[in-house]
Amino acid sequence: MTKKKTASVSLKRNEKPKPVILITNDDGVTAPGIQNLVEAVKDLGKIVVVAPDKPQSGMGHAITIGQPLRLHKMQREDNIETWSCTGTPVDCVKLAVDKILHRKPDLCLSGINHGANHSINVIYSGTMSAAVEAAIESIPSVGFSLLDYSIEADFSGAKKYARIIVEHLLKQKPDKHLVLNVNIPAIPEIQIKGIKVCRQAYAKYVEDFIERNDPHGRHYYWLTGEFVNFDKGKDTDVWALAHYYVSVVPVQFDLTNYTLKKKFEKIWK
Amino acid sequence: MTKKKTASVSLKRNEKPKPVILITNDDGVTAPGIQNLVEAVKDLGKIVVVAPDKPQSGMGHAITIGQPLRLHKMQREDNIETWSCTGTPVDCVKLAVDKILHRKPDLCLSGINHGANHSINVIYSGTMSAAVEAAIESIPSVGFSLLDYSIEADFSGAKKYARIIVEHLLKQKPDKHLVLNVNIPAIPEIQIKGIKVCRQAYAKYVEDFIERNDPHGRHYYWLTGEFVNFDKGKDTDVWALAHYYVSVVPVQFDLTNYTLKKKFEKIWK
Repeated sequence: MTKKKTASVSLKRNEKPKPVILITNDDGVTAPGIQNLVEAVKDLGKIVVVAPDKPQSGMGHAITIGQPLRLHKMQREDNIETWSCTGTPVDCVKLAVDKILHRKPDLCLSGINHGANHSINVIYSGTMSAAVEAAIESIPSVGFSLLDYSIEADFSGAKKYARIIVEHLLKQKPDKHLVLNVNIPAIPEIQIKGIKVCRQAYAKYVEDFIERNDPHGRHYYWLTGEFVNFDKGKDTDVWALAHYYVSVVPVQFDLTNYTLKKKFEKIWK
Repeated sequence: MTKKKTASVSLKRNEKPKPVILITNDDGVTAPGIQNLVEAVKDLGKIVVVAPDKPQSGMGHAITIGQPLRLHKMQREDNIETWSCTGTPVDCVKLAVDKILHRKPDLCLSGINHGANHSINVIYSGTMSAAVEAAIESIPSVGFSLLDYSIEADFSGAKKYARIIVEHLLKQKPDKHLVLNVNIPAIPEIQIKGIKVCRQAYAKYVEDFIERNDPHGRHYYWLTGEFVNFDKGKDTDVWALAHYYVSVVPVQFDLTNYTLKKKFEKIWK
């Protein structure tokens, strides 16, 4: 097993150690969102990008068990060390730590996702699952998502707030299991009112499936859905985003429901 | 959008309404585990099985966005309504509710998984993600896992406790967002000491990857790992299982870390 160090690395003799920042996403290594995230923070540390070679939206916390994984080093104009990976976002984090960095980075950033990951989407999102995986491995992490699916989305507001949040975390020693789910409204940067710390809204897609026949007459279903907010609270991420704030939800990976635990302890003693 | 009813259905005139129980898994529709779960509870309600057509372990909360899904009705000797689905465990739950049952079942059961889903495995597990998906959709649910990967595992203890838990839930009206993560130790039924309600242990696989070259000389990685329990608490699922108990962890899908939320509210007001 590879031994993992946690201290920052020196790049050159006499050079001040820079924090190592791992960047991944779920839209794939060539998506504009990840490029914008790299640009937003590239002077804040040694950046290493390890991201899927194809879109992996909705992969949740999937890992690849039954197949081998491959890594390919990519050439980039800005010389940022970049690898494409055949696996899921969570696979990318695992491989980056064990086989590329051979240590834990100081911070893991995921995104900037093309599309919202607020409310229940945190559970389906490959972007957020990569961040959660990092935190499970004791690497503080942040997932960023812009509420705009367009390939030509304006990332200026997202970049600004990503940098503010990363600078804040690098100045202090964040909790090793920290995960922040950051969503940025799709409005001009100047209209964003600031950052709001929130809870996850109970809002979700109410599913339906399109039913069609394929060219060979065989029936198929295709997932679609309508987004519905069932949560009227003013302390949620959905509320904050609708009111022009960047939403920040601290996320946990202890899924124990302690309220129900107490209830069931009375039944099964 | 299909309208979903929540009441129990009548099977025949004058027959007492039976609860509808949806059963799924991540090992695939032909796995012995799901067959054992059906056998354990088949007289307790109207059973409908909708499960993946192939193994989907480690798929977490993945959903299929970029591809169509198909359902195939299967013939079974016991006449239990059974469908195989080309998607993930979470897809199975969504399709079952929207396109097969056209209503919410009274209970969703997932498993019996071949292998443990205690501690952090709840996040990677397709079995548990199917149960969580049901609870998001306001269907009380339980995931069952036996600590034995063998295709020839002895499911007698798992069946006994699955039935005890399902009977209990059917007698009362469980919380609509209830999820129980139930793990059963791989010991003879008579040695099981009972049920212990627990919290999720901070125990996980410390990853490593096997590195090899394929027959064409190209490098690949294959995920492996060593299970390590970092949690010394005696109130965890790992502790209970090691002490011959069936572990029951109530699970939540609100991932907000409320402790860290308070901390960050002081930083970003």
